[in-house]
Amino acid sequence: MKNTFGNNIGITLFGESHGEAIGCVLDGIAPGIEVDEDFIALQMEKRKGISSISTPRREADRVRILSGVFEGKTTGTPIAIMIENQSQHSKDYSATKDLARPSHADFTAQCKYGGFQDYRGGGHFSGRITAPIVAAGAVCLKALSKKGIEIGTHIACCGGVRDRAFHCLSEDIALLKEKEMPVLCENSKKEMIAAIEKARNEGDSVGGVLTTAVTGVPAGVGEPWFDTAEGVLSHALFSVPGIKGVEFGAGFAFSEMKGSQANDPFFTKDGRVQTKTNNNGGINGGITNGMPIVFSCAVKPTPSIFKEQETVNFKTKENTVLSIKGRHDPAIIHRARVVVDSVTAITLCDLLAGRFGTDWLGE
Amino acid sequence: MKNTFGNNIGITLFGESHGEAIGCVLDGIAPGIEVDEDFIALQMEKRKGISSISTPRREADRVRILSGVFEGKTTGTPIAIMIENQSQHSKDYSATKDLARPSHADFTAQCKYGGFQDYRGGGHFSGRITAPIVAAGAVCLKALSKKGIEIGTHIACCGGVRDRAFHCLSEDIALLKEKEMPVLCENSKKEMIAAIEKARNEGDSVGGVLTTAVTGVPAGVGEPWFDTAEGVLSHALFSVPGIKGVEFGAGFAFSEMKGSQANDPFFTKDGRVQTKTNNNGGINGGITNGMPIVFSCAVKPTPSIFKEQETVNFKTKENTVLSIKGRHDPAIIHRARVVVDSVTAITLCDLLAGRFGTDWLGE
Amino acid sequence: MKNTFGNNIGITLFGESHGEAIGCVLDGIAPGIEVDEDFIALQMEKRKGISSISTPRREADRVRILSGVFEGKTTGTPIAIMIENQSQHSKDYSATKDLARPSHADFTAQCKYGGFQDYRGGGHFSGRITAPIVAAGAVCLKALSKKGIEIGTHIACCGGVRDRAFHCLSEDIALLKEKEMPVLCENSKKEMIAAIEKARNEGDSVGGVLTTAVTGVPAGVGEPWFDTAEGVLSHALFSVPGIKGVEFGAGFAFSEMKGSQANDPFFTKDGRVQTKTNNNGGINGGITNGMPIVFSCAVKPTPSIFKEQETVNFKTKENTVLSIKGRHDPAIIHRARVVVDSVTAITLCDLLAGRFGTDWLGE
Amino acid sequence: MKNTFGNNIGITLFGESHGEAIGCVLDGIAPGIEVDEDFIALQMEKRKGISSISTPRREADRVRILSGVFEGKTTGTPIAIMIENQSQHSKDYSATKDLARPSHADFTAQCKYGGFQDYRGGGHFSGRITAPIVAAGAVCLKALSKKGIEIGTHIACCGGVRDRAFHCLSEDIALLKEKEMPVLCENSKKEMIAAIEKARNEGDSVGGVLTTAVTGVPAGVGEPWFDTAEGVLSHALFSVPGIKGVEFGAGFAFSEMKGSQANDPFFTKDGRVQTKTNNNGGINGGITNGMPIVFSCAVKPTPSIFKEQETVNFKTKENTVLSIKGRHDPAIIHRARVVVDSVTAITLCDLLAGRFGTDWLGE
Repeated sequence: MKNTFGNNIGITLFGESHGEAIGCVLDGIAPGIEVDEDFIALQMEKRKGISSISTPRREADRVRILSGVFEGKTTGTPIAIMIENQSQHSKDYSATKDLARPSHADFTAQCKYGGFQDYRGGGHFSGRITAPIVAAGAVCLKALSKKGIEIGTHIACCGGVRDRAFHCLSEDIALLKEKEMPVLCENSKKEMIAAIEKARNEGDSVGGVLTTAVTGVPAGVGEPWFDTAEGVLSHALFSVPGIKGVEFGAGFAFSEMKGSQANDPFFTKDGRVQTKTNNNGGINGGITNGMPIVFSCAVKPTPSIFKEQETVNFKTKENTVLSIKGRHDPAIIHRARVVVDSVTAITLCDLLAGRFGTDWLGE
Repeated sequence: MKNTFGNNIGITLFGESHGEAIGCVLDGIAPGIEVDEDFIALQMEKRKGISSISTPRREADRVRILSGVFEGKTTGTPIAIMIENQSQHSKDYSATKDLARPSHADFTAQCKYGGFQDYRGGGHFSGRITAPIVAAGAVCLKALSKKGIEIGTHIACCGGVRDRAFHCLSEDIALLKEKEMPVLCENSKKEMIAAIEKARNEGDSVGGVLTTAVTGVPAGVGEPWFDTAEGVLSHALFSVPGIKGVEFGAGFAFSEMKGSQANDPFFTKDGRVQTKTNNNGGINGGITNGMPIVFSCAVKPTPSIFKEQETVNFKTKENTVLSIKGRHDPAIIHRARVVVDSVTAITLCDLLAGRFGTDWLGE
Repeated sequence: MKNTFGNNIGITLFGESHGEAIGCVLDGIAPGIEVDEDFIALQMEKRKGISSISTPRREADRVRILSGVFEGKTTGTPIAIMIENQSQHSKDYSATKDLARPSHADFTAQCKYGGFQDYRGGGHFSGRITAPIVAAGAVCLKALSKKGIEIGTHIACCGGVRDRAFHCLSEDIALLKEKEMPVLCENSKKEMIAAIEKARNEGDSVGGVLTTAVTGVPAGVGEPWFDTAEGVLSHALFSVPGIKGVEFGAGFAFSEMKGSQANDPFFTKDGRVQTKTNNNGGINGGITNGMPIVFSCAVKPTPSIFKEQETVNFKTKENTVLSIKGRHDPAIIHRARVVVDSVTAITLCDLLAGRFGTDWLGE
Repeated sequence: MKNTFGNNIGITLFGESHGEAIGCVLDGIAPGIEVDEDFIALQMEKRKGISSISTPRREADRVRILSGVFEGKTTGTPIAIMIENQSQHSKDYSATKDLARPSHADFTAQCKYGGFQDYRGGGHFSGRITAPIVAAGAVCLKALSKKGIEIGTHIACCGGVRDRAFHCLSEDIALLKEKEMPVLCENSKKEMIAAIEKARNEGDSVGGVLTTAVTGVPAGVGEPWFDTAEGVLSHALFSVPGIKGVEFGAGFAFSEMKGSQANDPFFTKDGRVQTKTNNNGGINGGITNGMPIVFSCAVKPTPSIFKEQETVNFKTKENTVLSIKGRHDPAIIHRARVVVDSVTAITLCDLLAGRFGTDWLGE
């Protein structure tokens, strides 16, 4: 199924940017898990980004839970989430609807849907469709937290500015939960915001790298082939708009290492097997080893820029130029982090259910 | 299903390094496609690597096709492939079977299978299990080639040595088909081999980066969410032992770019929409745009090294040291490339079937 | 995924009888197919049953299409369908919520969901959840009709009364489309309604058999093993509440036949291969043979009756008696037929997509 | 995936009647389960049927387990099973290869595979392909038995002769394990064999009904929609060649019942909730209720008969007649019962894993 992801716990996504509503169905969640609507609202706020460097949004993004929750707890049946789109006195898209915005999906949508796609505001490809993912992710994040599993993502670099690396994961993840702009070092944060503002002023945009850590995942989760922990997570992560690379542990830096540097020596402490380094990002042979899962995602610069760009009209096949009007984000990376956290939470719930059964999450 | 991958065309993998046989079932391939057993044998040879820098292998690796092929052509029913393991006068593994080799899956296998895993030679986690993938991939590569789709992978860097980038893809892919050592520049090749030999002499190993290009894939393949072309390919690629990162197009380099540099301008030539650059690696919004698909995989250094390493006995939970004996590859990247080509071919067949139906491949 | 069915075209179901809303996501439907909201409304009406023998319903059952339809046509992206539940001044269920109504799912829901299920009005098990299936089915029925595929279901027997058998399928299916009470013979219809009314007057209920015919399905659809046309259809049909048996062609009557009677002789007419009889119900070896697909479903009597019944309180584990109050259907078979038509349509779309690709439906 | 069935525990089937080998991959079975090769051999023998009414078979049907079993126990990785086909001095099929044997899959295979199918002896459609299902089923039957779950199938009727109904399930299932001809009543057995022999002497064949009981399945297994226990079981059962109907509990007999007769009253005994009757066959709302699962399968008469039959040549499209030569089974129902037991065991393992996780079976 095209818009459904997951084996035992999964999500089905629907909606278009300017349609009636967007939403998702989260299925397989154990009964009896508390659903914290305030936390959902908090995560939805985080997704909107900080005001100085994000597009002002009209949408209230009120999350309605249509099913699967009764007396504040999950029932074990599908949780349908809906966010109605506000009545859009939407601008007239007809002038530009056949122009392929570079690095956007307008042209590929045309190739796939043959002209029947809802072209308004990116339609089904809009970043707006990540809103229900964040709502569903909030349910999973809370449930995982009850089981001692915590997820945090920071901007490792953006606009040429690097954040400090994770050091104490439990403290760093706690810190990130509080942050509107997910940068661990305050100075880096200021420089990053400045770099983003500079790009905005130039009518341009920037990309970056998000690094995520997950603590508390038990060893033994994932499969040796195909449904490796890396494979399943990356599959889901590449759905986050703008993500064009995923690496685990040392990732591409492995290419500069020797085996003697790269291998993580095992040792036991308090009867628990651990590794001294974590170059493998908590995963050996596709299966979690009990160390923190660590991965990074490359995020490309926001495609919508104000500079004039060359493009084609895909109906007439004529070469032309395009100037994108309106308000656009000079960076989405700070907003994408909450989507990454959410996708990670949903996917981990499924991986854990594959090993321990779906009841495990509610026990 | 754990060891099955694919929606409409897929592969089910089985076997252990020292069990009776390894193999796979390739299902969903259209009827009437010629199966070239010589090409399969050729690909199996490539997987063994070049002699100066690879472990000499005893296995003849004779591929037996048990079903799904009749009078030299596919029947449309499952193609079962089996490679019998030679009678192994296998060394006694009992002394080291409870020692977790760093960066290997011994410990995670123990966590997942609770001591019942076949520990000999890595069991189901062995790189040897990629042999049937290569055989199945050979069937798909030939079928794709008939439809004008060609796949080639080179070692972009290894042991600190960089290859030249792809320039003319059709020529470069043709060149790579001929090469035992998949490096485009002859000088780089020599230096790379020297670097690998040096690592071997030091009892160490090296990793690197593989870059793959696919030409001829029609526009409109992949899904906007979850089953994005990137997501499905990466899901499969992370099964290749040692791969710890996957990036599409500019990938992690996007983090240093502005939108105005990153966006690929569209233009039409001879009525066909193309892009001037290909930073997006042939994929926009999860869907192919008709440009070559380009991606890179980070390969970690071979975990088996001859230097003494710290580790634990996961039965007794005692700290200890380990010295790996025997013959091991100082690099697997030149062998992994044929596995990457194979996994890519199988996965693309499935993505194409998702759009055009399974019959398409045989038409 | 638990509440998702289908490989290439599928449906994800959600909702509880007394929750906020019920609905579904229909995914994989080709772009460019006209969506006829009047036909959807007509099918919704049919599902409510004829007034003399059905429970009067408060619900307006207004179908809202939230996504996947633009300018009256499918876009190719997920079609989300929602029906809001009316503000229910619902009776107090607390007195009976721990009593297992015989033949209902109250006890099994308790076993599965551990007390967290929404028990009001059957919750997620309510027959009400078939309403979104009917709406999604209406989209598929119209699309199949454009491809020359027609589906019709009549009540073969109910309350001891038999309908005449299908004879001219195209005429009979056309006739059934018009009928509120799907019985081919007018006399049988009157007798059946009388039998149902008699059961109602006795505080009892009746079951029956539905027989379905599908014309126009091309030969070659279905798989030889597992995803046989029979297997996939029956899998879906057993979701229709009350269905406890599914047979194809002669079905259980085969047990009384000899091979020489049972085998359907082939012949050609106008260059088309056909069979003289259709005991196999249009399917040989799991694959359609181009003859009409014919199957029957056994429907058990409505579990809700007014007679006092023995049961248990599953919380206290005490034996007790139960008298069901309120209004209940003495038969659901005439309402179930539109659900059967809908499930058949959705499932056939998926089977056809498995053979010809998802685009086929829109061509 | 076409020839793969199951979500968490599943089977992938391959092979043709006259190809090199047939087999399957059974995946998801927990580690540490004993594999009893003698029991596998016993089940394989049962599948061959009793000599007086079955075709003498040349095949030794030696089952080779290629992977997934180590030191007599499952490893948790895929269990590949292979049965090599004996060197067949097979008769020349070329004279009849384009003739559609009535009630067989020759014509539909042609429609699906376009002439590339292996037509010899039914190819991939041959009843022979059930042999690996029986081997895989034997692994599952033993594992389920360790968990207190027992499965037994008898011939409820065949050739106009009825067996007595199940009464004491534990004794009857034990009895059936011993029986070559699975009929509970000795007199019925003799009459049934006589009826089958009579059909054979007339060059004809007979069908019948198999009834299966499963004891010990915990309550709470199955899903309310789509993956209902009935739906999943029937999906798999319709793969057994010749099965054209599946009914649970009272099944089609429900159509003659009133609700007051059909409903199963609940009561508690020794703190366990049970039902007084079991018309629902152990399943309410798609979910097991802890009572025995009971279902019946309609088996059509063996299509291969010796009487001359009308048919077509599907290449030339000419009408013709066909006389099937050689040796053929006048009934397959006594052989099908072990296939039904096996399919039921595999499918139940998957349903149980969906609720309790895959580890459950090995605990």
